[in-house]
Amino acid sequence: MDSLFMKPEEIEAASFRIIDAEAGDHGWPKAEWQVVRRAIHTSADFEYAQSMILPDDVIEKALAALKSGAGIVTDTNMALSGISKPRLTRLGCSISCHIADPDVAAEAISEGVTRSIIAMRKGIANPDNRIFVIGNAPTALFELLRLVNADAAKPALIIGLPVGFVGAEESKNALASGTHAIPFITNIGRKGGSNVAAAVVNALAILATS
Amino acid sequence: MDSLFMKPEEIEAASFRIIDAEAGDHGWPKAEWQVVRRAIHTSADFEYAQSMILPDDVIEKALAALKSGAGIVTDTNMALSGISKPRLTRLGCSISCHIADPDVAAEAISEGVTRSIIAMRKGIANPDNRIFVIGNAPTALFELLRLVNADAAKPALIIGLPVGFVGAEESKNALASGTHAIPFITNIGRKGGSNVAAAVVNALAILATS
Repeated sequence: MDSLFMKPEEIEAASFRIIDAEAGDHGWPKAEWQVVRRAIHTSADFEYAQSMILPDDVIEKALAALKSGAGIVTDTNMALSGISKPRLTRLGCSISCHIADPDVAAEAISEGVTRSIIAMRKGIANPDNRIFVIGNAPTALFELLRLVNADAAKPALIIGLPVGFVGAEESKNALASGTHAIPFITNIGRKGGSNVAAAVVNALAILATS
Repeated sequence: MDSLFMKPEEIEAASFRIIDAEAGDHGWPKAEWQVVRRAIHTSADFEYAQSMILPDDVIEKALAALKSGAGIVTDTNMALSGISKPRLTRLGCSISCHIADPDVAAEAISEGVTRSIIAMRKGIANPDNRIFVIGNAPTALFELLRLVNADAAKPALIIGLPVGFVGAEESKNALASGTHAIPFITNIGRKGGSNVAAAVVNALAILATS
């Protein structure tokens, strides 16, 4: 069927059939594969079938957080834009990003740190926010882990998928070490991004409302 | 230097040094490399060093369009979010995305096509819009090329980088065929995305204001 005359949901289903066929025997359990497959779908990069890390009980904990209406904070407006809102609204989950807030910019300048760091602190300051989604800034993820390790934050879930060449891999290794006891989803390596982070949230929101 | 204490511009410069070193003898001319390198920077994927297509005079034409204050239309709000606004504002370039407009959704339902198609038509209807940036929807790129081939549109530049498994590669091959005589930037294969499309615009905006 010509894709021009397919509905969006038909295009997505056809895409998933192609990914399933090409991924072959990937070894992911059913629910985890919904998440990993959507990361592949948004990036056309099968490397995520190998590089994603979803600890044993993270899906269960993530869905519990979503079903309890946890507030979601993203590090970028791109991730915020890429996250589909209707299912989250039904779950009662708010979603916010503070990177472009004028007070965040001012504080970042006065403290001499990235806006991403201050934006995370602002997100943490609201106790309704319990899911943190980082698709771009390693400094945001490092700051979040610093706050957790200092007992200043205890998120229900960290989705840490920063991308890049300086600090991204290291920040995700720190998250994956698991010494912090916070449920997390991440990947190995430099790749990642706001698009992939948003895809993970979208997959979880579908699982939580299906 | 610990990346936590680096300024964003220092992190970017360090990232570019790593990309330059690892890309080695990539063969791209200087200006084109600014664009390709930023696509790699945003995706951590060196495949773009091989897969990007920038025809000989496209940088010159792209910068001329930006310097003339061409309106920019994106296919997704993610691409819109990822595009840095200050330089474009200085150039007098507006930027818009119609995918979430209520009239677009209504028309898509009544015509039985994707919102992406109707959003492109709405973008084309405003003669100020002369740069089209497609990071997600093959149907948007196909529709844009259909309008061009029907003499219903003559953009100054098409940045076509849809991602995915159904139609993305084909839509980019149609763009790359060049039978339409519109300046274009695209890539070969399934990869792409709103993040990469935004990175290309950001690189061009920097070139146009440097």
